[in-house]
Amino acid sequence: MGIRIGLGVDFHQLAEGRELWIGGVLIPYHKGGLGHSDADVLLHAICDALLGAACLGDIGVHFPDTDQQYKNIDSKILLQQSIELIRAEGYRVINIDSTLCLQEPKIKPYIEQMQEVISTIAGIGKRDISVKATTTEQMGFVGRKEGVVAYASALLETI
Amino acid sequence: MGIRIGLGVDFHQLAEGRELWIGGVLIPYHKGGLGHSDADVLLHAICDALLGAACLGDIGVHFPDTDQQYKNIDSKILLQQSIELIRAEGYRVINIDSTLCLQEPKIKPYIEQMQEVISTIAGIGKRDISVKATTTEQMGFVGRKEGVVAYASALLETI
Amino acid sequence: MGIRIGLGVDFHQLAEGRELWIGGVLIPYHKGGLGHSDADVLLHAICDALLGAACLGDIGVHFPDTDQQYKNIDSKILLQQSIELIRAEGYRVINIDSTLCLQEPKIKPYIEQMQEVISTIAGIGKRDISVKATTTEQMGFVGRKEGVVAYASALLETI
Ligand SMILES: [Zn+2]
Ligand SMILES: [Zn+2]
Ligand SMILES: [Zn+2]
Repeated sequence: MGIRIGLGVDFHQLAEGRELWIGGVLIPYHKGGLGHSDADVLLHAICDALLGAACLGDIGVHFPDTDQQYKNIDSKILLQQSIELIRAEGYRVINIDSTLCLQEPKIKPYIEQMQEVISTIAGIGKRDISVKATTTEQMGFVGRKEGVVAYASALLETI
Repeated sequence: MGIRIGLGVDFHQLAEGRELWIGGVLIPYHKGGLGHSDADVLLHAICDALLGAACLGDIGVHFPDTDQQYKNIDSKILLQQSIELIRAEGYRVINIDSTLCLQEPKIKPYIEQMQEVISTIAGIGKRDISVKATTTEQMGFVGRKEGVVAYASALLETI
Repeated sequence: MGIRIGLGVDFHQLAEGRELWIGGVLIPYHKGGLGHSDADVLLHAICDALLGAACLGDIGVHFPDTDQQYKNIDSKILLQQSIELIRAEGYRVINIDSTLCLQEPKIKPYIEQMQEVISTIAGIGKRDISVKATTTEQMGFVGRKEGVVAYASALLETI
């Protein structure tokens, strides 16, 4: 049995006039993630954990922010492509655990929906994708509501 | 064999007049973690890694900081309850590795005691719980001694 | 089969007049990591993930920065010694995934070389060591180019 670990970390600034996409879900808020794509920090961290576990580089290698085809792209497409990339290498997801660091708004009401979105795209059970959320207790750029950070860990196995 | 990965991250401000509880151990220092509970950043990160691996939500879901029964609670109780929650799901801990980010005081003298406390509560061997510590080299809110961060990763298997 | 997880995090300030060593590779830049050793943040995070997975303490325990023999030491030697330490405990590396957080310079051109260096020292395949890189989107001490952070996760198995 081949088993592999992956770890992803992602950062985005929060800016007025942008939509806040997290875990594939649009969250009502007066700011949103800044980025070339839809800036979905959680999906990006998950993509990076998957790609990293399969030693396929990172999200910036596969979906460069200098490429116009990824401008404002829905990160659910990036997740789908990441899943296809690891499958092509002969891997499937055992489970994913992730943590979102965001000072506001409250994320808990959206977590179940995120798990549905991600599990559907990844072709895994809803109990195989965990999304957790925490503030940074007002500290740092996350605490000042200037940005958002996400961490994701993934376990893969050979098909 | 079912195997699962979990990743926890936790943050607390440091404030005068609070006790500094880390890894279930009271550490002599003029500041301590601010929080609804005893603010034990390391135990919270470990709880989150365990709950996340079992896809049971996070510490905020199970022990909400709006609930008076968790006011100033000893986080060792939260760890015990987290262990019971994952056991009820049919999981046991393979191993836990964690890193505490704290500028001062020196944590090394207390690490063995933390491992004893955590392994006893978790019902695992002392060699199955690792606690590491680092400063942030004076950078950021940890470096300014305003706060503390902990990361924990956990591997579970089905009983 | 014994399998173990490890997670390492490391921080270094960037200072003028220092060499920038990352992943065992010298990277042209006007600043470099400050530290007692060569301050290779990525190798240190990897060492910590390996030592943590084997519950052998951390890099500060084995290679104390108060010890003159580690002054300006090449961190590739620390990686080699960490590998020997986990082997002596009966473990070998399944895979390592890591993420470097650095605002500049661009790291992508050096990643393949880092993988070669690390895989050679660790005695694993180049596809078993993943190095990813991200900026923090100008946020925090990494975003202000004051420092660098690295995260590494490792999976070990008993020999
Ligand atoms: Zn991103
Ligand atoms: Zn906490
Ligand atoms: Zn270091």
